[in-house]
Amino acid sequence: MAKEVNNQEENYSLWYNNLVTKADLAENSAVRGCMVIKPYGYAIWEKMQADLDRRFKETGHVNAYFPLFIPKSFLSREAEHVEGFAKECAVVTHHRLMANPNGQGLIVDPDARLEEELVVRPTSETIIWNTYKDWIKSYRDLPILCNQWANVVRWEMRTRIFLRTAEFLWQEGHTAHATREEAEEETLRMAEVYASFARETMALPVILGKKSASERFAGALETLCIEAMMQDGKALQSGTSHFLGQNFAKAFDVKFATKAGGLEYVWASSWGVSTRLMGALVMAHGDNKGLVIPPKLAPLQVVMVPIYKGEEEMGRVVEHLKKIQKGLETKGISTKIDDRDHLRSGFKFAEWELKGVPVRIAVGPRDMEQGTVEVARRDTLEKSVVSQAGISTHIHSLLSDIQDNMYQKALSFREAHTHRVNSYAEFKERIEDGGFFLCHWDGTAETEERIKNETKATLRVIPFDHDGETGTCMVTGKPSAQRVIFARAY
Amino acid sequence: MAKEVNNQEENYSLWYNNLVTKADLAENSAVRGCMVIKPYGYAIWEKMQADLDRRFKETGHVNAYFPLFIPKSFLSREAEHVEGFAKECAVVTHHRLMANPNGQGLIVDPDARLEEELVVRPTSETIIWNTYKDWIKSYRDLPILCNQWANVVRWEMRTRIFLRTAEFLWQEGHTAHATREEAEEETLRMAEVYASFARETMALPVILGKKSASERFAGALETLCIEAMMQDGKALQSGTSHFLGQNFAKAFDVKFATKAGGLEYVWASSWGVSTRLMGALVMAHGDNKGLVIPPKLAPLQVVMVPIYKGEEEMGRVVEHLKKIQKGLETKGISTKIDDRDHLRSGFKFAEWELKGVPVRIAVGPRDMEQGTVEVARRDTLEKSVVSQAGISTHIHSLLSDIQDNMYQKALSFREAHTHRVNSYAEFKERIEDGGFFLCHWDGTAETEERIKNETKATLRVIPFDHDGETGTCMVTGKPSAQRVIFARAY
Repeated sequence: MAKEVNNQEENYSLWYNNLVTKADLAENSAVRGCMVIKPYGYAIWEKMQADLDRRFKETGHVNAYFPLFIPKSFLSREAEHVEGFAKECAVVTHHRLMANPNGQGLIVDPDARLEEELVVRPTSETIIWNTYKDWIKSYRDLPILCNQWANVVRWEMRTRIFLRTAEFLWQEGHTAHATREEAEEETLRMAEVYASFARETMALPVILGKKSASERFAGALETLCIEAMMQDGKALQSGTSHFLGQNFAKAFDVKFATKAGGLEYVWASSWGVSTRLMGALVMAHGDNKGLVIPPKLAPLQVVMVPIYKGEEEMGRVVEHLKKIQKGLETKGISTKIDDRDHLRSGFKFAEWELKGVPVRIAVGPRDMEQGTVEVARRDTLEKSVVSQAGISTHIHSLLSDIQDNMYQKALSFREAHTHRVNSYAEFKERIEDGGFFLCHWDGTAETEERIKNETKATLRVIPFDHDGETGTCMVTGKPSAQRVIFARAY
Repeated sequence: MAKEVNNQEENYSLWYNNLVTKADLAENSAVRGCMVIKPYGYAIWEKMQADLDRRFKETGHVNAYFPLFIPKSFLSREAEHVEGFAKECAVVTHHRLMANPNGQGLIVDPDARLEEELVVRPTSETIIWNTYKDWIKSYRDLPILCNQWANVVRWEMRTRIFLRTAEFLWQEGHTAHATREEAEEETLRMAEVYASFARETMALPVILGKKSASERFAGALETLCIEAMMQDGKALQSGTSHFLGQNFAKAFDVKFATKAGGLEYVWASSWGVSTRLMGALVMAHGDNKGLVIPPKLAPLQVVMVPIYKGEEEMGRVVEHLKKIQKGLETKGISTKIDDRDHLRSGFKFAEWELKGVPVRIAVGPRDMEQGTVEVARRDTLEKSVVSQAGISTHIHSLLSDIQDNMYQKALSFREAHTHRVNSYAEFKERIEDGGFFLCHWDGTAETEERIKNETKATLRVIPFDHDGETGTCMVTGKPSAQRVIFARAY
């Protein structure tokens, strides 16, 4: 096999980088920290987008588009927001290049300096709330439930494909409401939409809850999140939904006439998921043979490989596969016959395993005679010989099984790597092996900071779903209302 | 009516600007030259995207995503390309802001200067061909048929919503081929895809042909285009497809091993349409009452307005409308019942006319008794009373009629405003009234330049579809192989 993947166990990080590239998901570009999303990777992202977009529209949202650039002064308007983003901004200062008068190539034309510098959006709260100011006059203009699919730029120092890139693709919802309650409900609704998407479509058993104050979005009063476990036991924040209170309405002076005749600041939420989810997909499900893609996100669900000797036999087998293909397609299953004649079937098997195609069908002359088909499922790598009669129905239900099994497997993994720990000494020892730690915590930023400095673990999520057990902080012994999850994270 | 639109006849430009804003398509933003695409406008753009994306995939293309930023030095690689784009680039020079040590707000951190400045992509040939260099080794890697949906930035001095904005949304296809013939075929194929999309989906009768050398894309050997006529008689270039020869392969050193064992430069095409099409939609079909949206692009195809006195009557009428709505939805028709109770029906009629909804249904108590429905079509403004029985079928075929009629109307308009002119004197006189002019031209850039300087008209397109009539140039009297189209343009 030409493209071998490293072993997860030897070096998880190398395994990940390797797999992302070799499975043709994405690659680094000539621009520092910016990735190229290759067609196969982009096809998965398109499936994620379509599924999310449907869920957004079903919950009453509409799409819109706001400018890529944000005037520098807008960022300063909300104090915490600017603190969070000013240090990692791509800044546009000029609008023209010119031929270098003293040599070759181009230089920035010094006469084309912008009056006010523009920041490439790291997130769009400021430009959007500046726009909403003109859209919102009365309670009749509310709620506004907008989403945007866009690229954003955050000049991170250490980048890693999909997980942390200077430019990434995402969606950002920005909603405006008449009351605090409505904005809080929306914040929760969208966190739940993300959780359902992750569980049902990505086969990712995420934990839904809220962030501690120190992990909140810059400018939010509350940040909800979904947190997933990767196969190295680390956590990956997979989506966030923020209750912004009236912070941005105040920063941009957005008031509305209430039904009762008053004038009040508008309440806000914002929420987003990004191409980071592609990284989650790889790390939650991949194995040493390559990607394992849940059927609901697989650009190709069934690959069909003819087994043959010589051109004549190949022709006959391919014709036979085409009949099976027709049946699968009427069930809405996406398929491809790999009829490349310069590659051995073993090479093809390995290549499609690398690419994570959920089901492989192989048919040779003997199968044709016997009316059978060899079916291999990617998640368990099990092979079985099944009758050609009813193959479409069989594959259809197999895809559904694979989707469920992938979720269950990831859930079992997470459960096996989630530990209830009561002593800080035990925590410090076991954190080295990875996993989620359900601990009592005293609710202070100081304790969080101490844990982070001493163990590199952060408070990932205060889960909504918990057993109600109160206790005492594993570090300080002060009272704790519920267990929270600490882990090392991406 | 609150939102009145200006008359086209009085001031076409004002009518356009007004309509784009009042119909909630888009608006100017706080960032010079950058627009906000509002939800209603974006919903139309999404329909355009979906239709085009389907056509791209049907012709074998896949989507991918390449970086927003282009290293400054990349632009210099292709001589004509840099000439075309360097003067209107947004340039990123720094990657951090900092608090102003001498006052309020933020300043660019002088220590965060980039080693090499980055240009926000005005188009992606350079970064993509730099990437293709690693993707293409042998003839087996060809063709590459990639498309990207993205935002691009061209720092235009005079901007106008949708027609010419600093940032706009578009798709850009970038293909790589083993032979000149294949690349040329692809260039033509995609120009034809654009023409079919414009005609079938946008109801826009475009003229397909090629550009003269002076109107070509910077770096192309040939540029094909679709050219449409707006209702003021001006031309609007609506899509272009470029045969790039081996220019970018040479600039980025992209060679492939041929089947015969040689090593050759790769052949290329690129093609794009943008949110400019939204401008074309408004200007080709709109009238003094507002937008007229072809049913295939209408986010809302049928609006239903209840006619009533008092709350009880409204309840009954709305219930009745819901039954009709159900029938329409089973035919795949998108509908909305406008049950806002604080607005008169006359206001609602005007608002939905402004928004260009193809069909309006009004029902009152008398209609309910008589089993009738009032149906108004937006394109002709005709009203008719039809039986409620079979209403879904009636509306379904009416939508198809409207789509066809809009195309025919625009075609008749174009034909009525297309003039065969043989003398330059006549051309100079009649060009003031707008329209397309079918003229003989000697094929030189000098003559084109003279016509442009003297009349502001440019050579829009050398049509593929022509009668074969040869003649002599209207300006110089030199021989001409066919008539070409001159017009003033957006």
